[in-house]
Amino acid sequence: MAMRMSTLFLRTLREDPADAELPGHKLLVRAGYIRRVAPGVYTWLPLGLRVLQKVEGVVREEMNRIGAQEVRLPALLPREPYEATGRWTEYGEALFRLQDRKGSDMLLGPTHEEIFCLTVKDMYSSYKDLPLSLYQIQTKYRDEARPRAGLLRGREFIMKDSYSFDVDQAGLQKSYDAHREAYVRIFDRLGFEYVIVHADSGAMGGSASEEFLAVSEFGEDTFVRDEHGYAANVEAVQVPQAAEVDASAVPAAQVHDTPDTPTIDTLVARLNEAHPREDGRAWTAADTLKNVLVMLHQPDGTREPLAVGVPGDREVDPKRLEAQVAPAEPEPFTDEDFAAFPALAKGYIGPGALGEDKPAGIRYLLDPSIAVGSEWVTGADERGKHVLHLVHGRDFTADGTIQAAQIREGDPSPDGHGSLTLARGMEMGHIFQLGTKYAEALGLKVLDENGKLVTVTMGSYGVGVSRSVAAVAEGNRDEAGLVWPRAFAPADVHLVATGKDEAVFVAAEEIVSGLEAQDLTVLYDDRRKVSPGVKFKDAELIGVPTIVVVGKGLADGKIEIKDRRSGDRREVPVEDAVAEVLREVRG
Amino acid sequence: MAMRMSTLFLRTLREDPADAELPGHKLLVRAGYIRRVAPGVYTWLPLGLRVLQKVEGVVREEMNRIGAQEVRLPALLPREPYEATGRWTEYGEALFRLQDRKGSDMLLGPTHEEIFCLTVKDMYSSYKDLPLSLYQIQTKYRDEARPRAGLLRGREFIMKDSYSFDVDQAGLQKSYDAHREAYVRIFDRLGFEYVIVHADSGAMGGSASEEFLAVSEFGEDTFVRDEHGYAANVEAVQVPQAAEVDASAVPAAQVHDTPDTPTIDTLVARLNEAHPREDGRAWTAADTLKNVLVMLHQPDGTREPLAVGVPGDREVDPKRLEAQVAPAEPEPFTDEDFAAFPALAKGYIGPGALGEDKPAGIRYLLDPSIAVGSEWVTGADERGKHVLHLVHGRDFTADGTIQAAQIREGDPSPDGHGSLTLARGMEMGHIFQLGTKYAEALGLKVLDENGKLVTVTMGSYGVGVSRSVAAVAEGNRDEAGLVWPRAFAPADVHLVATGKDEAVFVAAEEIVSGLEAQDLTVLYDDRRKVSPGVKFKDAELIGVPTIVVVGKGLADGKIEIKDRRSGDRREVPVEDAVAEVLREVRG
Repeated sequence: MAMRMSTLFLRTLREDPADAELPGHKLLVRAGYIRRVAPGVYTWLPLGLRVLQKVEGVVREEMNRIGAQEVRLPALLPREPYEATGRWTEYGEALFRLQDRKGSDMLLGPTHEEIFCLTVKDMYSSYKDLPLSLYQIQTKYRDEARPRAGLLRGREFIMKDSYSFDVDQAGLQKSYDAHREAYVRIFDRLGFEYVIVHADSGAMGGSASEEFLAVSEFGEDTFVRDEHGYAANVEAVQVPQAAEVDASAVPAAQVHDTPDTPTIDTLVARLNEAHPREDGRAWTAADTLKNVLVMLHQPDGTREPLAVGVPGDREVDPKRLEAQVAPAEPEPFTDEDFAAFPALAKGYIGPGALGEDKPAGIRYLLDPSIAVGSEWVTGADERGKHVLHLVHGRDFTADGTIQAAQIREGDPSPDGHGSLTLARGMEMGHIFQLGTKYAEALGLKVLDENGKLVTVTMGSYGVGVSRSVAAVAEGNRDEAGLVWPRAFAPADVHLVATGKDEAVFVAAEEIVSGLEAQDLTVLYDDRRKVSPGVKFKDAELIGVPTIVVVGKGLADGKIEIKDRRSGDRREVPVEDAVAEVLREVRG
Repeated sequence: MAMRMSTLFLRTLREDPADAELPGHKLLVRAGYIRRVAPGVYTWLPLGLRVLQKVEGVVREEMNRIGAQEVRLPALLPREPYEATGRWTEYGEALFRLQDRKGSDMLLGPTHEEIFCLTVKDMYSSYKDLPLSLYQIQTKYRDEARPRAGLLRGREFIMKDSYSFDVDQAGLQKSYDAHREAYVRIFDRLGFEYVIVHADSGAMGGSASEEFLAVSEFGEDTFVRDEHGYAANVEAVQVPQAAEVDASAVPAAQVHDTPDTPTIDTLVARLNEAHPREDGRAWTAADTLKNVLVMLHQPDGTREPLAVGVPGDREVDPKRLEAQVAPAEPEPFTDEDFAAFPALAKGYIGPGALGEDKPAGIRYLLDPSIAVGSEWVTGADERGKHVLHLVHGRDFTADGTIQAAQIREGDPSPDGHGSLTLARGMEMGHIFQLGTKYAEALGLKVLDENGKLVTVTMGSYGVGVSRSVAAVAEGNRDEAGLVWPRAFAPADVHLVATGKDEAVFVAAEEIVSGLEAQDLTVLYDDRRKVSPGVKFKDAELIGVPTIVVVGKGLADGKIEIKDRRSGDRREVPVEDAVAEVLREVRG
C-alpha cells in the first residue's frame, strides 16, 4: 500500500498549535495526525487513524488471547440503569445528559458497567455460563472540566473496556489476574515506560484496583514508589496509623494569647519568641496541628462541612481528599460558610470546636500520622489564642481518620520498609475488582451448583486507546518530530524523492512498487514542487522509522536509507533498495 | 479461529422478540446477533459484530479503491457550524441536542457535511489540492420519530459517509460517478437485490441525487420503475406539466346546489343523478378537482397554510408532499385552522377562495397533471354548492405547481415512453451532488488557476452500514433462520458435535484444528448437555453456510456436510473432512 503525499490529506504545520500543551500532542497536530474540533474533541486524520487502528489491533489481540469476547454496545444509553446504581447522579457534571424527542432522559456512556451487567442478566442464568469476559473498543464520553491535555483528557475518546463475570471472589481474582497479564502484554508492546500502581477505586466502587501509568513529567497523576517495588497512586497510599506514644510527661494543656497568628508561619514565630521550649528545641510547623475546613458538595446537591486535621508542616492534598470523599466534591470553606458556624474562630480553629458532638457539630477526621498520646499546639477556638500541650486521646479525640494529607518525597513506605519517591504519570489502564456492587443494584444473579441464587461478582478493566496513541507519541519523539516504534508507525517506510530529474521519480516509483509487493506500506513523498529541505523536515516530523531518499545520489546508482531514531544513514545501490529496506523493516 | 458454543456469549431464542417487526430483524435477535438496549439503540453481540465488521471491510475496500481517504471525525459536535448552514434548526426534532457543563450547545452528528467542510477549509487552499474524497465509518445519531424497524431505522447507527471536494461541476460529476461505481460494487458484493433510483435531495440541499434501495416488501420507501430502466423514489418522480388543451367548447362555469356532498364520492353520485352529462358519460372522481389544505410547520416554529389541488381520484401523497415542503413539516388542517380562515367552506373549497391574492390569502399549488384549458367540477366556496365547467387558465389560476399527488401503478413514465410499476425498498445508500451550499455557508474557497478565489463544490455519499447488515439478513433467510452469504457469515463453518461418545468430540476437535490451520473460522458446537435437535435448530437459525455434523456416522468413519442454503447434505469419510469442507468454502 502506498500513500502519495501529492494527494494525501495532510498539511504539516511549522508552528505549534495554540491550544496544545504537551510536546507529543503538539507534534501530533503539527504532523497532521489529529485536529481539534472542539475542546477535548478530535478528528483523526488519515495518518492518525492508521496509528489508532494499530493500537486497537494490539489491544484486540491481547484481549482475544485471554478469551475475552468482543461485542459493541451503544454509546447513547437510557437513564434507568444508571439511576439504579446511583451513577446518574454520582457522575455529576462529568456525565453528558440529554433528552430524546419524547423527553426521555438519556446519557452518553462514560463507562458501561450497567449495560454489560444487564446484557449478561438478559442472557445468562447459571453458574455454568461463567466465567465470562466481554470487551468492546468504543467511543466514550466524559464532560471533563479541564480538557486541556489533548488526547489525554478528551471529552470524546476511544476506550477498550472489558467486564468479567464470576460466581465468586476466587473466580474474580482469576479474571482480574488474566486481565492484568493481558495489560502487561499490551503496555509492553506499546513500548512506553509504565508503572503499575495500587489505585483508589473512586466512584467505581469495588475493592482492589490497580492503574497502569505511563511515566511522564506531563502526567496528571502523581504516584509514589519505593526501592522494594511498592508503587501506588498518591490517592491510594495508605499512611499507617501511628502507634500510641506515652504522654504521661506532657504538662496539662495551656491556652496562650497568640495575637495575629492566623497562619502556621506566624504561629511558629510567635511560639519561638514568646514560649521557648525548656529543652531549647525550636518550635516547627510539625509541632502544630492544622485544622482545614472544607465543604462537601454531594451529587444530590446537599452540602456537608468536614474538618481535616493534619500536622502543620503538611497540606491537605486536594486529590487525596477528593478520592476519599467521592462522589462528593470538596470545595473551599467560604466566609459565608464560616458565618454559618459561629463556633469556628477562623485561623484559630482547634479540636475543641470540632467533631460531631462539639459546638460546631462538624465531622472531624485526623491524619493517621497523628498518634494517640502525641502533643500539639493548635487553635483555641478564640481569636488570637492557641493551646499548647494538647494531647490526642487525652485532651481531644476526632470522629475518625482520613487519608488526605500530602505525601512527600522521603516519606516512609506504608509497610515501613522503604522510603517513597514521587513521580508523575498518565493513566493508560485501570483494572478493578468491582465485586457485587453493580450486579446487586441491577439484580444480576445466577443459580449456583446447589440451585441457589447468587449475585454475580464483576470486574471492570479499561485501556485508554486514544490516550495510548498520545502516550506513544509523548514517549517517542525528539526535537525534529515524532519517532514511531515500528509497530505503530503509520507506514513502514517514508520514501522521499527529491529534485527535478524525472529519472528520480521513475526510480522511486519502482521502489514503491517493489515495497508494496512485499506488503509494506509506503508513505511516498512524490510532490514535484516542494523543496528537498521541506520534504526532509516533513519526514522527520511525521516520524516513520525508515526514511529512504532517492535524489542526487541516483546519478551514481545510489539511494540513501536513514533510520529516523538513530539518525544513521547509509547509501546502498539502487538495485538493492527493496532488499535493504526489507532488512531494516523486518530486522 | 474457533468459537466454542460452550463459552460463546450467545443465547438463541425460540420466540420472536416482542419489539421486532421485520422477519430478518427477528432472526437477528433470536439468533443472538444483536440485542435492543433502548428504542432504535442496539448492542452488537459477538456474532453480530463479526458480520458488521465484514460489511465494514467491504465498504472500506471499495472506498479505498476509488482513492477516498479514511479519517474519523467526532460524533459530539459544536452547534456553530450547523447554525451557519441552518441545519441546527432545519433538522428539527431529529437532531439530538445537548449542552456541556459550560452550557455550550452541542449535537450528536447525524451527518457531517459541516465538519468535513471546515476540516478541508482548515487545511487546503488551492485548486491543486483538489479533487479530494474523504470518508469515515462512524456511529451516527438521529432521533427518529418511529424507530420501529430495528436496525433499519436506528437512532444510533453506523454509517459510512464520504464527501468529495472539487473546484467545479465537471469535477463533482467525476467524483460522483466514482462514488456511484463504488456503491454499485459494494451493493453487488453485499448480494441483496437493489435498485438505483432518482432521489429527492430533501433537507440536504444540492441538485442531483440517487438512492440505492434494497428491494423489499418491508421497505419504508416506495419507488417506481418502468420497462425502459427508469427508476425513482416516489418523492423524486417529476410528473410532467400536462400540455394545454382547447377549452373553446367548454360552457361557462355554472354554480349548482350540491347539498350534502362534502366528499368526492358523494359529489360524484350527486352529479350523475342531478347533472347527467349530455354525451352520457358518467361523472367520475377524475372529473373533480380536490383542494387539500395543510398547515406547514416551519423549523423556526412559524406556521403557514398551503392548499394543494389534485384530481379527485388521487390523494395527496404525504411523503411526496413532505419532500416538497422540507424542512417544513406538513400537518393536517384542524377545525381551529378552518375557523381562522372564514373564506374556506370546509368540504366545498374551490379555487375561488385559494391563492395568495384570493379571499383566504392561502398559497395554492396545483398538480402538474392539471392542464391549462382542462375543465373541472370543484367546490364553490359555499356550503352545499359546487361549480361545473371551471376551466384552468380561463376561470382560475394558482400560485404554481407541486409534485405531491399520489403516483399510481400504470401511470406514464415522466418521459412518456413507458408506464410505472410501484415497489418498496429500504434505503441503503444515498449519493448527492451538493454543489456549493455548504462550502458557501462555511466559506470553503480555494484559489483557482488564475489566482481567483472560487467556492468549492461538494458531494456527499452515505452507506448505511448497520442497515446493510439488516438488509443482508432480510434478503437471506428461510423458515428455519438466517442463511448468510459466505462473505458475511460470522464463521466459515458451523461444526456440530452430537451425542455422548467421547470419540465424537475428539474427532470434532481434530477437524476444528485442521480447519483453523487452513485459516477458516469455525463456530464449534461443543456443548455436552444439549440435545442434537437443539443443536441442529441453532445451526439453522444462526445460518453459517456450511454445517458439518460429527455424530453417529463416526462409528462408520463418516461425517456429514450440509449446505445451509440448499439443504443438500452428503457424507464424507472423516479423514477427508478438512479437504471436503475447504472445497465447500473455497468453491
